[in-house]
Amino acid sequence: MIGGLAAGPSAASKAVRTNPNADVIMFEAGETVSYGICETPYAAAGIVQEEERLVIYTPEKLSAEKGFGVRILHRAEKIVPSRHKIIVRDIGNHSVSEYEYDKLIVATGATPRRLNMEGEEARNVFHLRSREDALGILGFLKSGSPKSAVIIGGGYIGIEMSEALSMRGLEVTILHRRRLPMSHLEQESRERILEELLKRSVHFAGDTRVEAMLQKSGKVTHVMTDRGSFEADIVLVCTGVEPNVELAKAAGIRIGRTGAISTDERQQTNLDGIYAAGDCCEVKNIVTGKPIYLPLATVASRTAYVAGENAAGGRALFKGAVRASALKVFEMEVAQVGISSEEARASGFQVVTELITASSKPDVMPESGKISIKLVIDSRSKQLLGANLYGSQGAVLRGNVLAAAIGQRMTVDDISRLDMIYAPPFAPLWDPILIAANQAKKKL
Amino acid sequence: MIGGLAAGPSAASKAVRTNPNADVIMFEAGETVSYGICETPYAAAGIVQEEERLVIYTPEKLSAEKGFGVRILHRAEKIVPSRHKIIVRDIGNHSVSEYEYDKLIVATGATPRRLNMEGEEARNVFHLRSREDALGILGFLKSGSPKSAVIIGGGYIGIEMSEALSMRGLEVTILHRRRLPMSHLEQESRERILEELLKRSVHFAGDTRVEAMLQKSGKVTHVMTDRGSFEADIVLVCTGVEPNVELAKAAGIRIGRTGAISTDERQQTNLDGIYAAGDCCEVKNIVTGKPIYLPLATVASRTAYVAGENAAGGRALFKGAVRASALKVFEMEVAQVGISSEEARASGFQVVTELITASSKPDVMPESGKISIKLVIDSRSKQLLGANLYGSQGAVLRGNVLAAAIGQRMTVDDISRLDMIYAPPFAPLWDPILIAANQAKKKL
Repeated sequence: MIGGLAAGPSAASKAVRTNPNADVIMFEAGETVSYGICETPYAAAGIVQEEERLVIYTPEKLSAEKGFGVRILHRAEKIVPSRHKIIVRDIGNHSVSEYEYDKLIVATGATPRRLNMEGEEARNVFHLRSREDALGILGFLKSGSPKSAVIIGGGYIGIEMSEALSMRGLEVTILHRRRLPMSHLEQESRERILEELLKRSVHFAGDTRVEAMLQKSGKVTHVMTDRGSFEADIVLVCTGVEPNVELAKAAGIRIGRTGAISTDERQQTNLDGIYAAGDCCEVKNIVTGKPIYLPLATVASRTAYVAGENAAGGRALFKGAVRASALKVFEMEVAQVGISSEEARASGFQVVTELITASSKPDVMPESGKISIKLVIDSRSKQLLGANLYGSQGAVLRGNVLAAAIGQRMTVDDISRLDMIYAPPFAPLWDPILIAANQAKKKL
Repeated sequence: MIGGLAAGPSAASKAVRTNPNADVIMFEAGETVSYGICETPYAAAGIVQEEERLVIYTPEKLSAEKGFGVRILHRAEKIVPSRHKIIVRDIGNHSVSEYEYDKLIVATGATPRRLNMEGEEARNVFHLRSREDALGILGFLKSGSPKSAVIIGGGYIGIEMSEALSMRGLEVTILHRRRLPMSHLEQESRERILEELLKRSVHFAGDTRVEAMLQKSGKVTHVMTDRGSFEADIVLVCTGVEPNVELAKAAGIRIGRTGAISTDERQQTNLDGIYAAGDCCEVKNIVTGKPIYLPLATVASRTAYVAGENAAGGRALFKGAVRASALKVFEMEVAQVGISSEEARASGFQVVTELITASSKPDVMPESGKISIKLVIDSRSKQLLGANLYGSQGAVLRGNVLAAAIGQRMTVDDISRLDMIYAPPFAPLWDPILIAANQAKKKL
């Protein structure tokens, strides 16, 4: 097993469970295994008070409880498929060893996209992917007492971090290349997210390209863009991630069009005995049938289980992902499931959309709020292809219903006939999902 | 249209929308149409501050906005199918008139089950079905300043009212015929509900039969049972409802085995031109294929739309109900979808159940709580037949996912492969639903 952050431990555990006699070793170049990186923004916000709690397993605990070997600070430098060997460097003592494998799982993960710009290594500029990054940010927030932050990138992590830093009292500016944040959502959701950010006093500079960073005594003081310069005591670069595929590529493992490792439904690569899992892989998008790069923890876990089971002699399949993800923006909930209207058009669907806003609970209930739902529908099959849900409490959990509907290839008629719960503390007589489906039916 | 409380107005509105030339009249024996009776407990609790807001439409507004005639205080006394006529009494002036119909929709609703016991008409004893009932309770809570309440029946409404009256500071006792409340839920849910009630200082007397009520100057002072007597300043009788079928039965409309009106998928009764909708009807249980009496507002609305559309010349079908309902018990959420393990066994399924308890959010998040899920599965087809979900915030909305799964006849394997949202403010990496399905798979 190469890689020990998330998919690695899952795959190794599953392999041992599948075949308790298997001799499994996991190599991780860093010091940390099994870390709750997705919870980092909440540690930065102070919602999670002790960062140590994000360490799900120490290497020792992982090894003892799950029954496989764990080698941290061991970097796999080469895969030699012809001899079924990998070459691994022990970073501690610089020694290099060869390890033989019957089956190999590549779980090399992803790396934050870099600006490749001077200043990016300054001590107040951070990426966010590893525990080291998280500790760096948390440490600097304490010791550096920053007053202002510039976040480069208005995607999931950028927005989560903007909220976290705002909660800590920092003046936060998000710089984003498009006019609106969250580029892969529907325009209406993106506009509402922008509104919410501005309402909560987060500055947002859209259509903005970062051109340089001004430094003073090892720290960046200003981020220079085509729309002026922005002062910053701390800078976060949140411009997405790229799959780590160099090792695989050098070994002759096939890389897909998305730039990530291509596998079959068994998570097997083109090379005999070599599987891949997690954020270094592309997966099949269930809606389009095409490969997609989807670095989500949920998808990583699933591919890891499948790879682990198959590497240990089992027969598991990963049939693809619908995509289901969510974001909290202060008091606003946002969920995205399936594909966007833009993706749907690009994939040749005949797209019809429907946008509704409805009450989350009966209007007489004091906690009733509004939930908006945009459905993306293929007018030929009447199947739901994707949806955005946003607004009050309950928007995100309702996303799971539509994700299931997409996975089951349900039509809008099917959705309009769903039995949904009505009870005043939870939902109105006609759930927003039913209202959306009923409205959409009229257009088809 | 006979009946104007909930299904009636929905069916009439739908009929007019389907055929704007249709001449539609709705007769209602009471004074109120279109009332949010399900929200009454929240008015009693003081959560909904103004009871008037539960009146969704006044007769005038309904008539003006929806375009059909509304006659309140008009009681249909007879249906004469052979002459396509109904005989209606104007309760105001005691006159009786005949009205001809091309199509008739019977939406006579349901009535609270009565104890048929002396004292039941006392001025501090209430049933809860109409606005008059709600106003009676609210008025007595104000003017009578009751300190103690006895609630007879530990079902949905009994428990909702127990919470409401507790919140107002009353000492509340629930008397229930079974050992545990909520007789149609799974035993584990019922035990947890009982725990929650006791924790919140609601008394619960199980296995208890009411035998008599002691009165003093027109008020009940004690409810006598086989387990002793219970003092009460106010008594609520919440022992379920029965369909109002006398009018239909007298006309020769077929009554099903459940005791409610039997219809086909078009909501048509056995008599030419006569439809039925709402709480006076039985419906098809999608899981068992058999008729079930399911007096839920969601089901009533759907049958009303179908009856209204068909009566006006359309072609709509109601294919049945999965059943999806929910309850809040103080801070605990409870959802029930599909059929219970008891119902499943009685219907001849080979039942396997799985009960899990899992975190609602990542454990490091401060608002993370526990959600329990009990799945009821048919071991032959591996299909989900029913589920109870209970515990922390998010249990109920997750019920909609399992209701959809049941409706789509998904197997436990299908459910274990669902794409579900993971984001720290909303859900853990492995949603409780996935954990439940994965555990259940091991038993099959």
